[in-house]
Amino acid sequence: MPPTFNQRIVLASRPQGAPVAQNFRLEQVPLPPIGHGQVVLRNRWLSLDPYMRGRMDDGPSYSPPVPLNEVMEGRTVAQVLESHHPGFAPGELVFVPNGGWQMHALVDASTLTRKLDPAGTPPPSTALGVHGMPGFTAYAGLREIGKPQPGETLVVAAATGPVGATVAQIARLHGLRVVAIAGGPDKVRYLRDELRVDVALDHRADDFAEQLRAATPNGIDVYFENVGGKVFDAVLPLLNDFARIPVCGTIATYNSRDQLPPGPDRLPALMNQLLRQRLSMRGFIQRDLQRLFPEFLRQMGQWLGDGSIRYREDVVEGLENAPQALIGLLQGRNFGKLLVKLD
Amino acid sequence: MPPTFNQRIVLASRPQGAPVAQNFRLEQVPLPPIGHGQVVLRNRWLSLDPYMRGRMDDGPSYSPPVPLNEVMEGRTVAQVLESHHPGFAPGELVFVPNGGWQMHALVDASTLTRKLDPAGTPPPSTALGVHGMPGFTAYAGLREIGKPQPGETLVVAAATGPVGATVAQIARLHGLRVVAIAGGPDKVRYLRDELRVDVALDHRADDFAEQLRAATPNGIDVYFENVGGKVFDAVLPLLNDFARIPVCGTIATYNSRDQLPPGPDRLPALMNQLLRQRLSMRGFIQRDLQRLFPEFLRQMGQWLGDGSIRYREDVVEGLENAPQALIGLLQGRNFGKLLVKLD
Repeated sequence: MPPTFNQRIVLASRPQGAPVAQNFRLEQVPLPPIGHGQVVLRNRWLSLDPYMRGRMDDGPSYSPPVPLNEVMEGRTVAQVLESHHPGFAPGELVFVPNGGWQMHALVDASTLTRKLDPAGTPPPSTALGVHGMPGFTAYAGLREIGKPQPGETLVVAAATGPVGATVAQIARLHGLRVVAIAGGPDKVRYLRDELRVDVALDHRADDFAEQLRAATPNGIDVYFENVGGKVFDAVLPLLNDFARIPVCGTIATYNSRDQLPPGPDRLPALMNQLLRQRLSMRGFIQRDLQRLFPEFLRQMGQWLGDGSIRYREDVVEGLENAPQALIGLLQGRNFGKLLVKLD
Repeated sequence: MPPTFNQRIVLASRPQGAPVAQNFRLEQVPLPPIGHGQVVLRNRWLSLDPYMRGRMDDGPSYSPPVPLNEVMEGRTVAQVLESHHPGFAPGELVFVPNGGWQMHALVDASTLTRKLDPAGTPPPSTALGVHGMPGFTAYAGLREIGKPQPGETLVVAAATGPVGATVAQIARLHGLRVVAIAGGPDKVRYLRDELRVDVALDHRADDFAEQLRAATPNGIDVYFENVGGKVFDAVLPLLNDFARIPVCGTIATYNSRDQLPPGPDRLPALMNQLLRQRLSMRGFIQRDLQRLFPEFLRQMGQWLGDGSIRYREDVVEGLENAPQALIGLLQGRNFGKLLVKLD
């Protein structure tokens, strides 16, 4: 028997600054009856990602906001419970682009384009991390905008997160000197010992900017921007001529988009530097580069299979803990790809 | 008889802020004897360009500064007076990359790669403007970074200057909607009536930002940045997703590079916008794109020949007037390509 009720988390109110628990509401609602071409899914893994902060605001963004009192958006890995589509059978495991913060999802089968092997290598949960959107963001942004060349120096922050860790490792595979940044000694140790970057730095150090300078004796050729804030500030004076800056996130500022920080205004100086050093900066989101996705799936599958690329998951149990986990993610409290296990 | 003395203008001191007459010194010095492989040149036209402001500072730049008490750098069109190189004969007209602010120049013939036809069309002086570095800056930056598509909207400022005017006209030839900006009613009239842009705006208008908004009902796809300052500020909120911003100059800030303007700090907001709208910004100087120069010479020669592209020269007579002319250029007082005629 398919379920008749669904547990879900909706956006109860829009955050002012950092999100708080009261912005979310856990509720139980009837599951609508399945229609033609649809499938009923039981979500198993929910991915939590920094972009979700943007969806909670109703300001301009590259995607529409989550409406109030609607289920929070999110990618999931789910099992088919019931299918009204010949391409899917109960028991199959699928990647769900719009699975949502909920135990069950009723979706059009046409939105499901990726079946997963429950016993596969890499395991199905990686379709939400290193072998999915975050890994692809790293791969595509580095390749199309970063244009890494052997011998160059790359800097990436949030480097134990799924995007940063993948950037660091792909760059290492391409023969770059990799300086990876994270917060706290455990993460720094992981970067050095597990991901084998050339230099791992803790952005919490008082002399972080000096450490970064010492770690980049030949300057910085690629800065993969997924953080913003003080790491970007420390990077700017170290950039080489013709440096490339793919910008896929500025998480440090997501909670304060409405307020401009106090001066001086550094925008004109950036424009001067851009010209003087012929820098290239480009914002992107992974779906802009979707044409590279099949190639990414193959290449990353191979790297994961032969151990060239490693990954780490940070698993939270239970849908009810998703809000607190997202709040922590925005403070850098996760260690690896943040997933909610829905059992 | 070749001359034994040379009149020249040297950098007497480095400017604090805007250059003043006292930063330059006109002097007469002996002309050294001609050596093997050299030619003695009589400069006929001296080009004055915004980049010269940068050479007067000793801060970091894409080129080394002019040393104190040395002749000011500048491109010239010159006549060969005496040649110790088989490739050049007295009377020939040449483009001189390092002709300098002086009546005569002694240079290695190997630096001379372009002979000019004294009676040619376009006339030789255009080798310093629309058919030379400024025109090429427009052509190459637009093509490689601006990537203009028919039906898109392009905005360019300083649009009666040699770079801006060429950008505006090439974009028009490519089928873009062109909004061109300049200072004062004469320049605006010229843009509209002579260069036939879609909309010409005066940046001195009190409601300039509103006029720009009204002139770009479909937003802005390409902003060719050669000015900086308040035009850039007015452009930012009007940019479309995936807009491209080639940055070849920020003349509005050249005189105040050392001071950061008061806050708020708009840099983090720019980074957010870059990501949200997937903007692309890239600084460039024309020599980075030198591989396109032969193609440019052919194509621009054709456009000039058939009248597709027009140009305007602003001619100042006499070497001694070059300092005041450069000072005026940095204030936007020239109207067309600024040249000094050396008779």
